Amino acid sequence: MNDDARIAALEQQVAALTRQVGLLEDTFAVRHLQFKYGYYMDKCLYDPIIDLMADDCEIHFLGGVFRGKEGAGRLYCGRLRNRFAGGTDGPKPGLLMDHPQLQDIVDVAPDGLTARGRFRYLMQAGTHYTTGTAHQWWEGGLYENTYVKRDGAWQIQIIVPKMCYVGYYEHGWAYTKPDAINNLSKTFPEDPYGPDELADAPLVLWPQTDILPFHYPHPVTGEPVEMEK
Amino acid sequence: MNDDARIAALEQQVAALTRQVGLLEDTFAVRHLQFKYGYYMDKCLYDPIIDLMADDCEIHFLGGVFRGKEGAGRLYCGRLRNRFAGGTDGPKPGLLMDHPQLQDIVDVAPDGLTARGRFRYLMQAGTHYTTGTAHQWWEGGLYENTYVKRDGAWQIQIIVPKMCYVGYYEHGWAYTKPDAINNLSKTFPEDPYGPDELADAPLVLWPQTDILPFHYPHPVTGEPVEMEK
Amino acid sequence: MNDDARIAALEQQVAALTRQVGLLEDTFAVRHLQFKYGYYMDKCLYDPIIDLMADDCEIHFLGGVFRGKEGAGRLYCGRLRNRFAGGTDGPKPGLLMDHPQLQDIVDVAPDGLTARGRFRYLMQAGTHYTTGTAHQWWEGGLYENTYVKRDGAWQIQIIVPKMCYVGYYEHGWAYTKPDAINNLSKTFPEDPYGPDELADAPLVLWPQTDILPFHYPHPVTGEPVEMEK
Repeated sequence: MNDDARIAALEQQVAALTRQVGLLEDTFAVRHLQFKYGYYMDKCLYDPIIDLMADDCEIHFLGGVFRGKEGAGRLYCGRLRNRFAGGTDGPKPGLLMDHPQLQDIVDVAPDGLTARGRFRYLMQAGTHYTTGTAHQWWEGGLYENTYVKRDGAWQIQIIVPKMCYVGYYEHGWAYTKPDAINNLSKTFPEDPYGPDELADAPLVLWPQTDILPFHYPHPVTGEPVEMEK
Repeated sequence: MNDDARIAALEQQVAALTRQVGLLEDTFAVRHLQFKYGYYMDKCLYDPIIDLMADDCEIHFLGGVFRGKEGAGRLYCGRLRNRFAGGTDGPKPGLLMDHPQLQDIVDVAPDGLTARGRFRYLMQAGTHYTTGTAHQWWEGGLYENTYVKRDGAWQIQIIVPKMCYVGYYEHGWAYTKPDAINNLSKTFPEDPYGPDELADAPLVLWPQTDILPFHYPHPVTGEPVEMEK
Repeated sequence: MNDDARIAALEQQVAALTRQVGLLEDTFAVRHLQFKYGYYMDKCLYDPIIDLMADDCEIHFLGGVFRGKEGAGRLYCGRLRNRFAGGTDGPKPGLLMDHPQLQDIVDVAPDGLTARGRFRYLMQAGTHYTTGTAHQWWEGGLYENTYVKRDGAWQIQIIVPKMCYVGYYEHGWAYTKPDAINNLSKTFPEDPYGPDELADAPLVLWPQTDILPFHYPHPVTGEPVEMEK
């Protein structure tokens, strides 16, 4: 092979490696993004959470869909910040909101501009007896999220936190009433912290066992693994 | 340095980078494979689990060894599917089988064809009171697995789920009887869903504290860290 | 472009790729290092833990700072090994010390010689009723650690295990007394297993909710996310 051909071959290989390395860096960036979301949620840092969201974000939460920075603001900086943090960012003594994030499956699109991620969370939450009202619960769930890379930074575009079970500490998940969670029923502006629209289907908790669809095919057969009831 | 020497140096570097990048991609592929196993186990998707297994797979479960697709089928699609999913794939209302997977240490062999992985699981399981029988437990354990890459797809070749403790929700792990778990005692075909053979040693639960051997040496000294009692 | 220019461009690209791939390998190495720390802690393998530490290590534990291999030895092979493992390395029947490690955010410095890592742990611990004293607890916390690469091997330089809550199994985290944990109060040699010095501030448990500072800026804005009370 002459020099020209060898150089051309190298150019092709280096271009391929550059794409592959970029996708590996992106995979780490996306999982770190989601893990940072979890660490901010631990501490009721809702302004930083809004900054993780893309301008055209969608948050699917308790049977509602919140759209854009405004919708995200109503959910995180309105509804959640008022409920869990007394209206100001930052953790409040006596409130536990730990949001461990794990079991990440991140798939970055070949163009390096969008990604899908499946994650699990396993929450420890409650209020301490010294606040006057002891309350404590376990909560487990999944995410199937979409991410976008804009101006060089990965952001959360669609976030679907699928709560699967809630277990009050004293009784455990086996005794939680099927209707323990209230889905959102009013949209904004009727509910000032409400969603832009209601979801097609409400969130159902265990004992229901619907499958949150997998964004990826089976890793060996390449076939979709379909929802089954 | 003349052009020839520079090109030759580049060819060597690019070959080395190609190997390194391949191993990084494989590391992600193997951890994703194991994490997908966990997500399928959550939902009693046993046919997809069989498809994750290599033709010459070995599953070390409750003191038995199940070999090949047939053995894997007896375990997942016979024993477990009958016990936990009423004989058909997919989750059943009122049954919780969450299998979080975490703390992955994946080492891909230099040839990129086999890999070893240590993982942990931390399970939430049970039946909901609305089924008529409330039952709930925590379960923690480890895996030391072997993976193979065939036809471009990573598969599970040897899977060793080492249950470490079981804690019934009402009492916790400190009160579980040492003989709470029944090891398998009969092989196939005497037990139609039995293993091909019994393991050399039965599975022992906490309060026993045997170490599942580490597939990797100490990361600083390079020496093996031996089992100690 | 002539051959010379093409070769020069390739040399630059390959140099950049080599740095990027090195950082990806280092990222995996550091998270594996921390995960291996967790697996050794599970099993009271304190000598291997000392071998994970850099010669100039610092361990920030319960309001004390232990320095260097000698300080680390007093903590792990003195205090902890005597308390949890009867003075010898290895797990003891009836004692559970599971230290799951998760939610890793590892940032390797551009020179590939130091790294920072944030991790979470979620512990299951206790003594089994067959020992005569049943005792069991949940414990959750964070790490913000510094790692160094020396002689080609990543080591732990500064480790800050920030215990956040303790929940005795029978009562849960909501009922743990605020002063349930005793901070270290005497230094070495007055306390033969004591720290080299006391920390500026004692460890405070939930219901306190101080934020362990993030080693990284916000991933989208690039601004620090400050501690808030």
